[in-house]
Amino acid sequence: AGCPKVVPVEIAKRAEEEHAKGNPFKIGMFTGASTGDSIDGSLARANAVKFRTPYQTNKDMRNAINAVQHEPVQYFDMHLSQVAQEIRYGFLGGVDVAIVEACEITDSGEIVPTSGVGIMPTICRLAKIVIVELNDKVPAKMRGVHDLYELQDPPKRRQINIFEVQGRVGLEYVKVDPSKIYVVRTSKENEGSGFAPVDEITEKIGENVSNFFVSELKKGHIPPTFLPIQSGVGNIANAVLASMAQNKDIPRFEVYTEVIQDAVLDMMQKGHISFASGCSLTLSNEAMERFYRDLDFFKNKLVLRPSEISNNPG
Amino acid sequence: AGCPKVVPVEIAKRAEEEHAKGNPFKIGMFTGASTGDSIDGSLARANAVKFRTPYQTNKDMRNAINAVQHEPVQYFDMHLSQVAQEIRYGFLGGVDVAIVEACEITDSGEIVPTSGVGIMPTICRLAKIVIVELNDKVPAKMRGVHDLYELQDPPKRRQINIFEVQGRVGLEYVKVDPSKIYVVRTSKENEGSGFAPVDEITEKIGENVSNFFVSELKKGHIPPTFLPIQSGVGNIANAVLASMAQNKDIPRFEVYTEVIQDAVLDMMQKGHISFASGCSLTLSNEAMERFYRDLDFFKNKLVLRPSEISNNPG
Repeated sequence: AGCPKVVPVEIAKRAEEEHAKGNPFKIGMFTGASTGDSIDGSLARANAVKFRTPYQTNKDMRNAINAVQHEPVQYFDMHLSQVAQEIRYGFLGGVDVAIVEACEITDSGEIVPTSGVGIMPTICRLAKIVIVELNDKVPAKMRGVHDLYELQDPPKRRQINIFEVQGRVGLEYVKVDPSKIYVVRTSKENEGSGFAPVDEITEKIGENVSNFFVSELKKGHIPPTFLPIQSGVGNIANAVLASMAQNKDIPRFEVYTEVIQDAVLDMMQKGHISFASGCSLTLSNEAMERFYRDLDFFKNKLVLRPSEISNNPG
Repeated sequence: AGCPKVVPVEIAKRAEEEHAKGNPFKIGMFTGASTGDSIDGSLARANAVKFRTPYQTNKDMRNAINAVQHEPVQYFDMHLSQVAQEIRYGFLGGVDVAIVEACEITDSGEIVPTSGVGIMPTICRLAKIVIVELNDKVPAKMRGVHDLYELQDPPKRRQINIFEVQGRVGLEYVKVDPSKIYVVRTSKENEGSGFAPVDEITEKIGENVSNFFVSELKKGHIPPTFLPIQSGVGNIANAVLASMAQNKDIPRFEVYTEVIQDAVLDMMQKGHISFASGCSLTLSNEAMERFYRDLDFFKNKLVLRPSEISNNPG
C-alpha cells in the first residue's frame, strides 16, 4: 500500500531490453517493508535486482533470492525499524533514486504520501533524484493523515515524544529540494492484498484472546479504561480484532500497530477502536475504497508514521 | 554484591528449627538478580524457599529448584528489568518484608545502599517492614554513587531522561517512613565472586572484538570519539574489556552495563574507561577493597542505578 506502481514496471522493461542486448542492468533496492507485484514481482521476473532489503512477500522475488532461475538476489532480512538508520549511516551505500507515491506535491517541494510511509522521509532527503508517482486515484485530502519525522541517530538520540497513540511529532509532508523532483502522473489502483476470511480456527484463537483480556480486566490487571493494543499483521490478527469487537466486555480502545488492516477500519466504523497509528494502510481494494470514500470520518482516527517510529522496539 | 548477609542466614536457622518441630516455614523471595551464598545458599539448604524470581546462580538453590532433595522451589526466570514493575503491578503478591544492605541510614529514613541497587527503591517503598543491614565495612561516603529512581508504569510512561552514561535522574538514597525501618548492624565482608583469569581462548576472543572495533573506527563507522560500550557479564566480557584496554587504537570510552566487573575498575585506573553505569558492583573481594580504598577516585567515575534502568531494553 502506498507503493509506486508505474516506474518500477518501466525499470523492469528497460532491464529486459538491456539484457536482450547483452548489457548488464541491475538495481539495488531498499523498501520500507513488503511491496506490491509492480515492484518486487516485475523487477524479480526481469532479473533486475542485485540487492534487496529488508522484507518481501512476493513469490517471484522469493524465487529470485533462492536463485531458482538466475544468479541469486543478495537479500538481507533486517528489522524494519533499522532500515532508515542503516541508510543514514551509509552502511547500505548511497541512495541514488527515491521512487515514492504521493497524493499531492507543491512547487516548494512538499510531497504528501498516500497510504504508506515506511522509509520515505529518509530516502527523499538523501536521494539525488526523487521520482514522485502522483496518483490521482488517491484524494489530495489525505494530507493531514501523516506524521513525518526522522529519528536522531545514536548514541545520544533523544526520546520519541509520542506518549499517546494520537501524539504527533512531525510534519504532514516530506519536504525536499524541488530541483531534484521528477513527477510521473498516474491513476493506478491500490494493489490490495486481501486476507483470508475468519475461519473456525482463527475465530477460536480470537475468542481465546478476547476472553483472556476480559478475565484480566475483571481481575483488575488491566485498568477499566483498557490499554492500547499492538496488533500483529495477517489473518490471525484480523480475527483477534474482530473477536474483540464482538465482545461487549471490552471497551473502546486504541491501537499502535505496524500496518493498519481491514479489521481496524471495521472496528473504527462500529465504534470499537477510537484511534490507530501505523506505517501503512495494508487494506484490500474494497477497504481502501471505503477508506477514501469516508476519509473525513477516518482522518481524525488514524495517523501514518515512518516505520522507524511505528516499528520502534524501544 | 550489596546483598544482605546476616538476616537471611537467621531466617534459614529459624526455618530449620521450625521444620525440626514439624512446623511449615517457607518464604517467597524476589531479588534484583543473583545474590550471595548467605541468601540463596542458606535458604535453599534450609528448604525455606517457596517461590524465587528472577535469577540466581547458586548451586544449592539450583538443586532446590530442580527438587533434588525436597519439594521444588517454584522458580520463574524473569527479565531483570521487569521485576520492579511486576511487583508494582501486584502480579507477585504484596511485599511483606524488604531486607537491604546500607552504608548509611538517617533518622528521617534515608537509606543509602552499598554496592548493589537492583529493585531496592520499589521493595522499600512497598514493604510493610524494611530491615536494613547497616554494614560498617562499607564506607559511608559511598553516598553519592547511586542514582535512585522508579520508572512510571505503562501505558503512558515517559522517557527515562538519561542520554549520557553520567546522566542522573534520581536521589542518592531511598527514602521510606522511618517507623517501618529495623536496623541490624553488621561488619560482614563482601561475598565476592572472582572470575576466571583471562586464558588463551578468551584472550583471542577479546583480541578479535578489539580488532573489529578498530577496523570499524578506521572505516568511519564508529566516530573518532568512539561510542559507549555495553558489556556483558562474565569471563569473556572481562577478557574483551582487558583487550580493549591494551589496544592503543581504541580511545577512552564510557560503559553502560548491567554489573560493573573487575576489568572496568582496572580500566578506569589505567585511564581507558572514563565513566560506567550499572546496577551493582560485582567484584572480587580484592577489587572491592581496592574500590573502597580509592573511593574518592572512583566516585566521580561511576553511578549505580536500579535494574529497571540499567537493564532497560528500550
